[in-house]
Amino acid sequence: MTFVLHHTDGIARTGTLSTAHGDVPTPAFMPVGTLGTVKSMMPEAVKATGASILLGNTYHLMLRPGAERVAKLGGLHRFMHWGGPILTDSGGFQVMSLGALCKLTEAGATFQSHLDGSTWELSPERCAEIQHLLGSDISMVLDECTPFPATHETAKASMERSMRWAARCKTVFPAREGYHLFGIVQGSIYADLREASVLALIDIGFSGYAIGGLAVGEGQETMFRVLDATVPLLPKDAPCYLMGVGKPNDILGAVARGVDMFDCVIPTRSGRFGRAYTRRGEINLRNARHQEDPRPLDDACACPTCTHYSRAYLHHLVRCSEMLGPMLLTWHNLHYYQDLMRGAREAIARSCYDNYIAACVEGWKK
Amino acid sequence: MTFVLHHTDGIARTGTLSTAHGDVPTPAFMPVGTLGTVKSMMPEAVKATGASILLGNTYHLMLRPGAERVAKLGGLHRFMHWGGPILTDSGGFQVMSLGALCKLTEAGATFQSHLDGSTWELSPERCAEIQHLLGSDISMVLDECTPFPATHETAKASMERSMRWAARCKTVFPAREGYHLFGIVQGSIYADLREASVLALIDIGFSGYAIGGLAVGEGQETMFRVLDATVPLLPKDAPCYLMGVGKPNDILGAVARGVDMFDCVIPTRSGRFGRAYTRRGEINLRNARHQEDPRPLDDACACPTCTHYSRAYLHHLVRCSEMLGPMLLTWHNLHYYQDLMRGAREAIARSCYDNYIAACVEGWKK
Repeated sequence: MTFVLHHTDGIARTGTLSTAHGDVPTPAFMPVGTLGTVKSMMPEAVKATGASILLGNTYHLMLRPGAERVAKLGGLHRFMHWGGPILTDSGGFQVMSLGALCKLTEAGATFQSHLDGSTWELSPERCAEIQHLLGSDISMVLDECTPFPATHETAKASMERSMRWAARCKTVFPAREGYHLFGIVQGSIYADLREASVLALIDIGFSGYAIGGLAVGEGQETMFRVLDATVPLLPKDAPCYLMGVGKPNDILGAVARGVDMFDCVIPTRSGRFGRAYTRRGEINLRNARHQEDPRPLDDACACPTCTHYSRAYLHHLVRCSEMLGPMLLTWHNLHYYQDLMRGAREAIARSCYDNYIAACVEGWKK
Repeated sequence: MTFVLHHTDGIARTGTLSTAHGDVPTPAFMPVGTLGTVKSMMPEAVKATGASILLGNTYHLMLRPGAERVAKLGGLHRFMHWGGPILTDSGGFQVMSLGALCKLTEAGATFQSHLDGSTWELSPERCAEIQHLLGSDISMVLDECTPFPATHETAKASMERSMRWAARCKTVFPAREGYHLFGIVQGSIYADLREASVLALIDIGFSGYAIGGLAVGEGQETMFRVLDATVPLLPKDAPCYLMGVGKPNDILGAVARGVDMFDCVIPTRSGRFGRAYTRRGEINLRNARHQEDPRPLDDACACPTCTHYSRAYLHHLVRCSEMLGPMLLTWHNLHYYQDLMRGAREAIARSCYDNYIAACVEGWKK
């Protein structure tokens, strides 16, 4: 079984997703390892935060160092020294947002590398091949990223192309024990299109279903409304992954709506910009008020940053642009996100998930 | 006893330097932790390389975060979470090289911060006070950094002022068990001035003696000649520290001349610039020839970088400017430097130090 459900509390649920490189307790947060490294973290440190699965970016890895090269060097797990599961995105989002002169046809995308302007092609078939070469435990289908906002007509045509591409990815994806292909639901903010997309994907058949095209500027309320209209339509025995989300309160709200998996650059990127997420809300370490503060970021946190270092020291590192600043803040932020997910899993298992959300929200206000 | 000698092999020797925060086996290499952090390294990682003592920079720490602030936060050891010994330099070198509009009088140095142009004063007495506030296990006297090249007349006047400053530092340095003050021998490349400086310092009396004013462009041959003329004059029962040196072969040659302690930014700075030091010489990871090389940097090295990562992966990280590149290369370089010192101590103990140098030099050619 790919996915086993353990507990439900309302629509929220816990489960275990099995992959070739190990199990993933859900709801799960996946740290982002764009270029074969979670920025500023040793993989042992990523594991120590409690992360069970990483995300890699197909677009970035296909350009540097190249999928064939990674395969030659033994695959992405070995290349980056991460023994646990890896999910790779399809690259579609970056192709369409970072690549220059991106041209989409029914065949796929043609674009120029943001690095050197060289021309590349990414078809649904090549997308599946690249992820196979990388050795991903979970591959994502190539989808067209519908711009936001989009008219119903545009969103419909875009979603329908994504569904045809999803079928092509499925056709070429080699079946191997523990290696999964996820479909991606599109349809912008339109409930009827989301429903049609879900039905099309179920018809093709995937190990898991992602919800794409959200967290693109529509706001939390709209995002939650789309989840309310979409998640209940998905097969209960497959994991549901909300792509690119998000802030702690986005994640808690999405878990309440039945989502099992998340990825986001916020904890790593914020760490590089001197920001920390804690039980008492966000902290900007650049602020001068921390310069003589002997307290840890979060006295309830067991990460090395909170165990050994003062806010004054972190402020000093950030102000001096010392690399140890991003290292310690990223470690803390990832640990905090994993703590948040651990807490969610425990609360769902004890059927008190609503209370858990309320307690987290209350804490952030302090 | 501050310093106990164990073995001698010719002039080379091994010993143990005792401090308030632990023992230092010598010959020792001290990684540089300029601003209260060894750049890109967690302190646990620094310790894992085998380092027993760190160097902190008085100039940088007095400007940011400030000596009084560090003291208020419990001292430098606690601030940066390093439980072992710390040696701080006097700040003189940076005041005179980084500080703008630096003016020297008999009283001390007046200069402008390289950060914000604010005006600061550093007298011999304030220098000792700052290092006391930081909580350094080993404080260095304030010295005037004689420019290179310098005439005999200039070098003599400069050295004599440094000797008067050394006496003033000694006068105000509070005697505490395990906390040491080292004098600094000056005199440029002139043997008679070096001798006069040694005699002046012995007359004042210090726990250890440093040799300053070298590695400033005079070349290895001249440096070794000055060491040959200076080290034998120093008390045998005190440690001898060659400041700011150096490359592996500089260090091995200086150990052969009786030097016990070293510090240098080379292993850390090189790591940030994509360069590795190994038993087979230097490696520039930027070079495209590494892009598909599955071998570790150094197959005889037990550091995490060599244990888990290929040259191809390190090349990828360096080319992508990923922080993990400097992290892994710095770790390896510091580990290599500590291995070099371990090897030197063992060879001296077995009375085969000349063979050890020859074997190292032979390896670097490969």
